[in-house]
Amino acid sequence: MGPAGIGDRVEGVHAVAAALSAGRVTRITVERSRAGRGPVADLLARHIGVPVDLVDDVRPLADTSAPQGLVADCVPIPLVPVADLAGPGAALIAVDHVEDAHNLGAIARSALAAGMTGMVVPDRRTAPLAGAAFKAAAGAFEHLPVARVSSVPDALRRLAGLAVWSVGLDAGGDRSLFGLELLTEPVVIVVGAETGLHRLVRDRVDVLASIPMAAHAESLNASVAAALACFEVQRARTQGSGRGFLRDPAQGPHHPS
Amino acid sequence: MGPAGIGDRVEGVHAVAAALSAGRVTRITVERSRAGRGPVADLLARHIGVPVDLVDDVRPLADTSAPQGLVADCVPIPLVPVADLAGPGAALIAVDHVEDAHNLGAIARSALAAGMTGMVVPDRRTAPLAGAAFKAAAGAFEHLPVARVSSVPDALRRLAGLAVWSVGLDAGGDRSLFGLELLTEPVVIVVGAETGLHRLVRDRVDVLASIPMAAHAESLNASVAAALACFEVQRARTQGSGRGFLRDPAQGPHHPS
Repeated sequence: MGPAGIGDRVEGVHAVAAALSAGRVTRITVERSRAGRGPVADLLARHIGVPVDLVDDVRPLADTSAPQGLVADCVPIPLVPVADLAGPGAALIAVDHVEDAHNLGAIARSALAAGMTGMVVPDRRTAPLAGAAFKAAAGAFEHLPVARVSSVPDALRRLAGLAVWSVGLDAGGDRSLFGLELLTEPVVIVVGAETGLHRLVRDRVDVLASIPMAAHAESLNASVAAALACFEVQRARTQGSGRGFLRDPAQGPHHPS
Repeated sequence: MGPAGIGDRVEGVHAVAAALSAGRVTRITVERSRAGRGPVADLLARHIGVPVDLVDDVRPLADTSAPQGLVADCVPIPLVPVADLAGPGAALIAVDHVEDAHNLGAIARSALAAGMTGMVVPDRRTAPLAGAAFKAAAGAFEHLPVARVSSVPDALRRLAGLAVWSVGLDAGGDRSLFGLELLTEPVVIVVGAETGLHRLVRDRVDVLASIPMAAHAESLNASVAAALACFEVQRARTQGSGRGFLRDPAQGPHHPS
């Protein structure tokens, strides 16, 4: 298990704005040349009271090469035990071997937009849940509960014991993800890298499903595959109405009606 | 109008492999340290006969910072006139203000996978159709016909005259993209940057549609929004079977049944 929280330092306008809105920023470090104008100035103006340090260059503090002139130190977001993600309305996304931080963050962003209720992230062979992933997530980690696990197959086994079905996305899957009736049940979707799911994960999931692709197309980007899967869960549960969501914000993420 | 072709230089293992398969590579430049092992060696072994130059570092020739040790000079892929993309089975994606090369390439990759029949790319305020976009497209530009236009609204007007409807993706759209019946007609989907579509494009499209999102989510990545739209077109035309595709490869891209 890693540390008990994530996001103790975030960077980029979107991610810092989201952390500020969540009330967990303790200090912002800003490039002098950007502090007085544009989106950075707007952000600072809306959050007067948060301590600000001015520096010539924030990049030595940053995780990406383009922190957009600001980095924020934050109270970390607590991780949750994987069992807390189970429940009758569970709609979870798990990642397996997603080593690209941009993809990891993009998956969280799409999952939140599709109304998924949590994310399972393994300790190893995964991009760090740090600045680059937070920047790509554009604030999604402020709202999407994350469980960090030492083993995805073990996590799937624990979730199965809590009545959560698992669906692995794999080009070799013999079922189409589209129209899969299982998606209306409590479910965790496992998305891997372009090389496919790890064998232990493939062996463990209840269903291996693929996204049907046209001729000439070999594979989809991992974050695109994850987004298609998350929105398919939403579709299955709203019965094709195209409106309505899994999660009623008034009820919190874990107690759907 | 820009030049008459695209992709005269591609980089990265996937993109170079796709250009080799398309038979349009005239010379490969490879880093000495990578030529003898791994995926680069496999690629060269499968294409003996293509001239190879060995160098210490290909990055001076490359468009991205990670060309994976190889760059290929190629016969360009011809662009097509926008009118050639019309037709009874037209399923087109147009981009507006997509200035990130990775997003531009990722949109082409998803469009091809979803069975779209062509892409409309404006000359200006758009990432170049060069190495970085080709690398992110992972070979998609070898198969997806591209029309380059000086104005997206003008292109939509010309397509409208050829019986192609237009749907703009915009967070302010009052219709849901999901379930939109118009998608079974010849159609061009216009996807913009996160800031939304240009006003002239918004005014020109037949329908403004949005992707319904859950609470707390502000926006989707442009390439994710495009992928959801392209697969929604596929779904509309295959009547929810989840299998079957818009394009029969035996018939070519412009003559669907």
